Amino acid sequence: MTDSLNYAATVLRRCDELAAFSEEEGRLTRRFATPELRQAGERVREWMEAAGMAVRRDAIGNLIGRLGDADRQTLLIGSHLDTVRDAGRYDGTLGVVIGIACAELMRDRGAVLPYAIEVVGFADEEGTRYGTSYLGSRAFVGCFDDGWLERRDADGVTMRAALGPFGGSPDGIAQCRRDPADLIGYYEVHIEQGPTLESEGLPLGVVTAIAGQTGATVTFSGVAGHAGTVAMSLRRDALTAAAEWILATETLARETDGLVATVGRLALDPGVGNVIPGRATVTLDLRHPEDPVRIAVGAELRRRAEAIAAARGLAVQWCSHETAAVSLAPQLIEPLAEAVAAAGQPVLRLPSGAGHDAAIVSTIAPAAMLFVRCAGGVSHNPAESVTVEDVAAAIEATTRFLELLA
Amino acid sequence: MTDSLNYAATVLRRCDELAAFSEEEGRLTRRFATPELRQAGERVREWMEAAGMAVRRDAIGNLIGRLGDADRQTLLIGSHLDTVRDAGRYDGTLGVVIGIACAELMRDRGAVLPYAIEVVGFADEEGTRYGTSYLGSRAFVGCFDDGWLERRDADGVTMRAALGPFGGSPDGIAQCRRDPADLIGYYEVHIEQGPTLESEGLPLGVVTAIAGQTGATVTFSGVAGHAGTVAMSLRRDALTAAAEWILATETLARETDGLVATVGRLALDPGVGNVIPGRATVTLDLRHPEDPVRIAVGAELRRRAEAIAAARGLAVQWCSHETAAVSLAPQLIEPLAEAVAAAGQPVLRLPSGAGHDAAIVSTIAPAAMLFVRCAGGVSHNPAESVTVEDVAAAIEATTRFLELLA
Repeated sequence: MTDSLNYAATVLRRCDELAAFSEEEGRLTRRFATPELRQAGERVREWMEAAGMAVRRDAIGNLIGRLGDADRQTLLIGSHLDTVRDAGRYDGTLGVVIGIACAELMRDRGAVLPYAIEVVGFADEEGTRYGTSYLGSRAFVGCFDDGWLERRDADGVTMRAALGPFGGSPDGIAQCRRDPADLIGYYEVHIEQGPTLESEGLPLGVVTAIAGQTGATVTFSGVAGHAGTVAMSLRRDALTAAAEWILATETLARETDGLVATVGRLALDPGVGNVIPGRATVTLDLRHPEDPVRIAVGAELRRRAEAIAAARGLAVQWCSHETAAVSLAPQLIEPLAEAVAAAGQPVLRLPSGAGHDAAIVSTIAPAAMLFVRCAGGVSHNPAESVTVEDVAAAIEATTRFLELLA
Repeated sequence: MTDSLNYAATVLRRCDELAAFSEEEGRLTRRFATPELRQAGERVREWMEAAGMAVRRDAIGNLIGRLGDADRQTLLIGSHLDTVRDAGRYDGTLGVVIGIACAELMRDRGAVLPYAIEVVGFADEEGTRYGTSYLGSRAFVGCFDDGWLERRDADGVTMRAALGPFGGSPDGIAQCRRDPADLIGYYEVHIEQGPTLESEGLPLGVVTAIAGQTGATVTFSGVAGHAGTVAMSLRRDALTAAAEWILATETLARETDGLVATVGRLALDPGVGNVIPGRATVTLDLRHPEDPVRIAVGAELRRRAEAIAAARGLAVQWCSHETAAVSLAPQLIEPLAEAVAAAGQPVLRLPSGAGHDAAIVSTIAPAAMLFVRCAGGVSHNPAESVTVEDVAAAIEATTRFLELLA
């Protein structure tokens, strides 16, 4: 355990160091295909190479460090290196850096595995820049939609234009796809991003499933007009309609056990102070571990949007996409639970409310996840925090897991 | 009247022509200190010069065409050439173009005035670019705040940096100030932007007063967090708090006779789909012809914001500025009413719900305004529309007004 504490201290230092690669002064923002994400990746590459790995970037910009001969089957250990705006330093990054630390620890202990390990730093999980999450793992499993290349970020830069300077290749994305026959499985360590482990007093959790998710873009269309001259009774204000729906969404989510609903973006057109908003576009993020509950709430929220718009003389447009809940692989969950116990920790099994690259990679390989306790359950926030002891426990459990798979 | 119909047709053609000077393809957006506003001004300059005017730009970019000797007292005829986003073609522009048409008509009729006329196209009334309205007329009356020069537009360009290419001069703005002793008064023709003239079946209205206005920026500060893992009961969502306040604002405005309240801008931080908003900043635009009513409602809305924030465990910050209602000058209103009657139109006196450059210029000179009926009372919208007959009536009334002042 002293051993793993040393490696854990290195992991925390590396997470601190990577937090300095940010697009914004004074806070951590590292979006897909930015120079800062590339620089962070180059630092990770140095650590991977020092650990003896052969390192490459694929065409979407995923960073991949391989330990083991080319003809061996491969266990993937991954997470993502991009962040939300004003992020914490552990969401994503921790899983990549722990993967490297475990490879170093195994090497230093002289452990020999009969399979290859690849540590993967996915280039986009959060979707902060282009509004499409899991770009890295989607390319990795071969379900990247080439139409996404024409999406524009807030500055009007297309994904296609951003990829070149990032070291990616828009025309090579099909080659990112991994052959399932080569893969033993996918394993991801991640902070819990919720309060369960802390409230149970446990450092680690074995993830059983990943909550399903509905993402929707809802557009209310009214009539723009002069803020000083259109009487209240004559208005078709898109923002007040959206506000009514946002509150209805909050109320319904509060009434539905285990459901979370978030409106994280809101854009107004024209969006100036002295004009009644003619159009309001909001995003909805809806999650629940049980698909039927989530689907029913989504349908109800759509009905509410239509009813609110109709009562106010507005139109509403609803565009949504669904991600089903994902069950992780029992053939990996069981040895992982055994490894956690062997590392001296109680075994708690729990679902994940957050989506993860593991949900995407599970479509081509058995997937497992280990959660690490985080202070207050806080994530997507600079206050993200983990302890060196908990990270050491994760390293200890992971190395035992790797041995059990041998 | 046939005469004025011809001039009115020219006015409408010119408004059409100016509508083509836009920053955005397919819709009219012409913000302060943009190349498009400069180009529109250069076209107006040609018309002014053809009407015999000596034309100059002042340091903030106001376009000023003078007819008459330098030693004569001056009647200003003005309005603004900038627009909101996705604007109509008459708000502001009509008043400038009618001013030129009246000067042409008077010249063509051989009328000689004992005073000088200056037609002024103000460079910024809407405040679309920098969030500070009436920049042009504020500089004109000598109450420009040099601190505004450091404000940045949405692309990060400071006003100081924008002024140079626009032909302005940040260091010369103090010289824009006009000496009240030189001025007979200020006269502005403007579309009504409201439904009163249309509902009364009248082409023209004599404006008696301009509604007072409260502008506020209200910031709700909560806690950002992960959209998938923070239970609804633990959230401090800045957007749902803002939504509750926006609805409360709408309700109170509907209950208060003659009051209009608008939230036209809303910005979220971090503003991404999978993060609970940690901060929501909204603008409030509150107007009423009677200052005490407006002030009382503003105070109540501030209390509501504080109560909503407190109940949700959030903080709220309230920054507001007030513009008192303005009474226009009886010594100009009476001859203007007489001129409208002499032009064969019934005289309706009415207050303005919208703010106008006249409110600012009234601090250094007697001011009057003439409203022109607009279809549906619509403004700040591409559907803005006036008839050639109504514009002819405005030209007829204005020329008689100019003669009455002689």
